[in-house]
Amino acid sequence: MSIQSKFSKLGTDNAPGQEVRQGTAGAEGFLRGDKLSGRPVDFSHGDVDAHEPTPGAFEAFSAGVALGGAQAYTEYRGDLGIREVVGARLAGFTGAPVDARDGLIITPGTQGALFLAVAATVSRGDKVAIVQPDYFANRKLVEFFEGEMLPVRLAYREAAAGQAGLDLEGLEVAFRAGARLFLFSNPNNPAGVVYSQDEIARIAALAAQYGATVIVDQLYSRLLYPSASYTHLRAMDIDAENVVTIMGPSKTESLSGYRLGVAFGSTQVIARMEKLQAIVSLRAAGYSQAVLRTWFAEPEGWMAERIARHQAIRDDLLALFGGIEGCFVRAPQAGSYLFPSLPALAIGHADFVKALRLQAGVIVTPGTEFGPHSGDSIRLNFSQDHAAATAAVERLAALVERYRA
Amino acid sequence: MSIQSKFSKLGTDNAPGQEVRQGTAGAEGFLRGDKLSGRPVDFSHGDVDAHEPTPGAFEAFSAGVALGGAQAYTEYRGDLGIREVVGARLAGFTGAPVDARDGLIITPGTQGALFLAVAATVSRGDKVAIVQPDYFANRKLVEFFEGEMLPVRLAYREAAAGQAGLDLEGLEVAFRAGARLFLFSNPNNPAGVVYSQDEIARIAALAAQYGATVIVDQLYSRLLYPSASYTHLRAMDIDAENVVTIMGPSKTESLSGYRLGVAFGSTQVIARMEKLQAIVSLRAAGYSQAVLRTWFAEPEGWMAERIARHQAIRDDLLALFGGIEGCFVRAPQAGSYLFPSLPALAIGHADFVKALRLQAGVIVTPGTEFGPHSGDSIRLNFSQDHAAATAAVERLAALVERYRA
Repeated sequence: MSIQSKFSKLGTDNAPGQEVRQGTAGAEGFLRGDKLSGRPVDFSHGDVDAHEPTPGAFEAFSAGVALGGAQAYTEYRGDLGIREVVGARLAGFTGAPVDARDGLIITPGTQGALFLAVAATVSRGDKVAIVQPDYFANRKLVEFFEGEMLPVRLAYREAAAGQAGLDLEGLEVAFRAGARLFLFSNPNNPAGVVYSQDEIARIAALAAQYGATVIVDQLYSRLLYPSASYTHLRAMDIDAENVVTIMGPSKTESLSGYRLGVAFGSTQVIARMEKLQAIVSLRAAGYSQAVLRTWFAEPEGWMAERIARHQAIRDDLLALFGGIEGCFVRAPQAGSYLFPSLPALAIGHADFVKALRLQAGVIVTPGTEFGPHSGDSIRLNFSQDHAAATAAVERLAALVERYRA
Repeated sequence: MSIQSKFSKLGTDNAPGQEVRQGTAGAEGFLRGDKLSGRPVDFSHGDVDAHEPTPGAFEAFSAGVALGGAQAYTEYRGDLGIREVVGARLAGFTGAPVDARDGLIITPGTQGALFLAVAATVSRGDKVAIVQPDYFANRKLVEFFEGEMLPVRLAYREAAAGQAGLDLEGLEVAFRAGARLFLFSNPNNPAGVVYSQDEIARIAALAAQYGATVIVDQLYSRLLYPSASYTHLRAMDIDAENVVTIMGPSKTESLSGYRLGVAFGSTQVIARMEKLQAIVSLRAAGYSQAVLRTWFAEPEGWMAERIARHQAIRDDLLALFGGIEGCFVRAPQAGSYLFPSLPALAIGHADFVKALRLQAGVIVTPGTEFGPHSGDSIRLNFSQDHAAATAAVERLAALVERYRA
């Protein structure tokens, strides 16, 4: 494969945060009417000014700087003392032991953990079961390492309450066809649904039956709304060497600016991840690692308040989308993503996303990023200023009417 | 290739900083005599407590945190305002224009830049010209992307003063054999030699003749000793689209704890690097990027003093190595590495490196990390406390005598 074709599938034009590199070329042809005024909102990622980083994070960073060389130059997998602190908390959170010495690696963001985990498990031609829709990088990572994707459908629209809607028969078909890796996010990004205990138990059983490794991205597993019940795959009846769990404090905790993530579980996979980290970026920024000391140790009541504020925004936006005729949206049980599908429009959905940006000051991520069957959907990260977010979705609703087919 | 064999070449057991994961197993069999007392020195990397980060770095980071979301979520290639500031300074330093918008990317450390640059230029089976000895990750990166290495010898021991000693005929042989990428560090890591203007001009001419891309790692190009004359490849007569230059503030400036690097030059290669960064780690830590505002803007006289202090340590260590019979070391013209070869010993060199650690509290990096012909050499990063470093090399000299063949 030439380097050009290898990178041709790695498009980032519609990736969250990259809109600044887009021009307005071609938009004159399909835009109707005037701009709608209002405070611009970038729903492609959360607003860490509206929902500030956890208290104490900067102080922990400063303490890391004060420690000097010992904090700047850690093992590639991260400082052992910090791994021990975080490992114990992650064991408590997930309900299964964490081996801080050999079964945990600190990475540059959750993205870093995902990259290393896929690189450490996928060789050219390997079959990998991937959910559709799911986080867009999953697909890109498998393609970059020349794995073969076996898609498994997530019927989140049709699923019963409390179920994510994974096509479990489809997953078994993928395993039977040779997939030895299953990669998925829980809660699902973009749909915000949480897998039920039955679904997670069945995934564990199938992985055991077929000797498959499972990488589960639990980035949003702390931001659970009251009705949700969360099951950690690693606490099920499954060989601990066959599970890698990924988390990080970039989202709920608003610590993305420090670039921190962790992967924990399989000691074999994590050993390979560290070998690769040595040539990818050496280590997560040493001083940043110190910020992890604040993780899972937030002040009393802090997380409950963060959840309540997000729930209030979620509910207002759900009501607004509910008022758009022909729009479908499932209420997310966790996280801060809404993934509404839009009614038929007189212009293509890609053009509508552009119109939103140019005419309403509203940036969303097109559904095509998450799977081939989500072209009529858009993803909104509603971790925003409450009033600005509702006003922005009101402008979005107005533009839907303007362009309705 | 199975995932196991793909990772089997990525050993990190002897990589700098990973010694903490080594045990003492097997050492009882070859150790002679008692431990030598003295303050332990880890020569595998610089001591940022002895040579502190540049003034203002932490304050710039703090200002980044205060900026909030705008600094936390930048383009994948880094904040444009910072790219413009740094780009102009890099243009001044290297003597050729830098396109801040399309020809510069900020990465998690220089290692991150190197990884992305190799990933963006090497496909399976591509031939890559690599210097021996050179930075160990160069080889590992080419192997990880399944490129084919065509080694080119650096005869730094035999070279005339002012020459690095690159086998230029060997480089042409590699190009003639199909190499379309040449990857090297200047000053050379580990040998500390600087390529002469003639050598760089010839590299440029050969690259032009064969249409090859050159990635040059100039990490240490600011720490030049008075006698050295440095030539920037990108300022020579060469197609700018065929050169990627890599630098970062981790070494001379002691900012490794922030994980910052840059790559600049070829807009095509850098576009691919950004696409890949989007799935590797998204971006260099947003807040850390703000620290780059201090780079190339150090207080008056700061760099001159840093160089003078390193020169003083270098000269004392050179004298000590010169006193060991049968030891060869070339005085580095830049950077903070010494790469002495040791005389014949009664134990293997790998065991001697272990004995150094266990009996003298001295950590060095074995020469085998840098190429197949450097087994009798060891690399020392002498960016250390001056007195501790000289005492450590005195202990090293004593152990050489203890184990001399």
